[in-house]
Amino acid sequence: MITISAFKWVPEFAHGQVRDLRVRWALEEAGLPYETRLLSFGEHKRPEHRAFQPFGQVPAIQDGPLVLFESGAIVLHVARQSSVLLPADPVASERAIACVFAALNGVEALVAQLAEIDLFHAEKEWARLRRPAVEASLVARLVDLASWMAGRDWLEDRFTVGDLMMAAVLRILRQTDLVTGHAVLGPYLARCESRPAFAKALADHMAAHEAT
Amino acid sequence: MITISAFKWVPEFAHGQVRDLRVRWALEEAGLPYETRLLSFGEHKRPEHRAFQPFGQVPAIQDGPLVLFESGAIVLHVARQSSVLLPADPVASERAIACVFAALNGVEALVAQLAEIDLFHAEKEWARLRRPAVEASLVARLVDLASWMAGRDWLEDRFTVGDLMMAAVLRILRQTDLVTGHAVLGPYLARCESRPAFAKALADHMAAHEAT
Repeated sequence: MITISAFKWVPEFAHGQVRDLRVRWALEEAGLPYETRLLSFGEHKRPEHRAFQPFGQVPAIQDGPLVLFESGAIVLHVARQSSVLLPADPVASERAIACVFAALNGVEALVAQLAEIDLFHAEKEWARLRRPAVEASLVARLVDLASWMAGRDWLEDRFTVGDLMMAAVLRILRQTDLVTGHAVLGPYLARCESRPAFAKALADHMAAHEAT
Repeated sequence: MITISAFKWVPEFAHGQVRDLRVRWALEEAGLPYETRLLSFGEHKRPEHRAFQPFGQVPAIQDGPLVLFESGAIVLHVARQSSVLLPADPVASERAIACVFAALNGVEALVAQLAEIDLFHAEKEWARLRRPAVEASLVARLVDLASWMAGRDWLEDRFTVGDLMMAAVLRILRQTDLVTGHAVLGPYLARCESRPAFAKALADHMAAHEAT
């Protein structure tokens, strides 16, 4: 049985955004049961948790002898156990893994910069000066992403772990309409979020915060 | 035979930094021969290249029927073919993959922000205001990284693809002494860069720029 670390409480701006959500989503898609190990906010920075997650972050998982951290690595670990997430065909499987890296490196790096400005620094002078260029870079990347899809419903020919990760990244931008107002990416994100496994994962993720 | 895309020419600040280097390094560690497809600077933004790399970046590879992009995905593809890069033990192998994600997401996201400020925006007002906080976040992350190593020579018990990727990321910071002057990470980076496969990859990477 997989145990995943998550928070008991997070500030409201982080509701539905902490990265245990993407792991829960993958576990639901794969139909794998799991337990949670809920941390108090602050506990993630203590040495006992750093033994699981060297950077003092959430999530980490324990799966038998394996302790794993980084949401990308964990989601791939889950995906390898489910044809819903990773096609059996080796070429399609490697392409799906590339989509996970594209989500985390090609898109999330820019998304996180914009979200950090909007959520934490909106009133600061540097943020006012810097924001237009960050938004412009991100918008250009979203254009690339929409072109890539080229009329398909998913990044590749079918839903994979790559779409799961891309959707988890795109929904970080909820403080803007860059995705929700986009002709291709808005419906794409809605398509991903309409999956029953996402709804279940989000409900469980939120329930953990609300239980305390 | 793997074909990897790289640049014929890049500006001098990018010498030794373009991301085909990390793929060349992995291919040398694995002892796999490869060919290069050298692009003129600018050609990477054209539709013909975007068919290989949706974001118009370098590198992408072709390996038989597989077209793969994102340096993380490509390096893992190579690593799966070599016990030098990925241990046979499944737990150790998954930990090594987690190190790749830690390098790209946990460290490179911050490294890239600092490098962007230093290389492209050093004289700008927003950069002057913002730089101290970016550097502080990065320094804290480097402290975490050094703690993780806990006296070992490598991130885990032996050299893996995770060290290759972490070193490729840390060496981006050559405009500062944050890594080279660090008591743990300086020698760690030197240890990684002293590998013959790295020297060969760097020489070939540079030769591609110098041939034109």
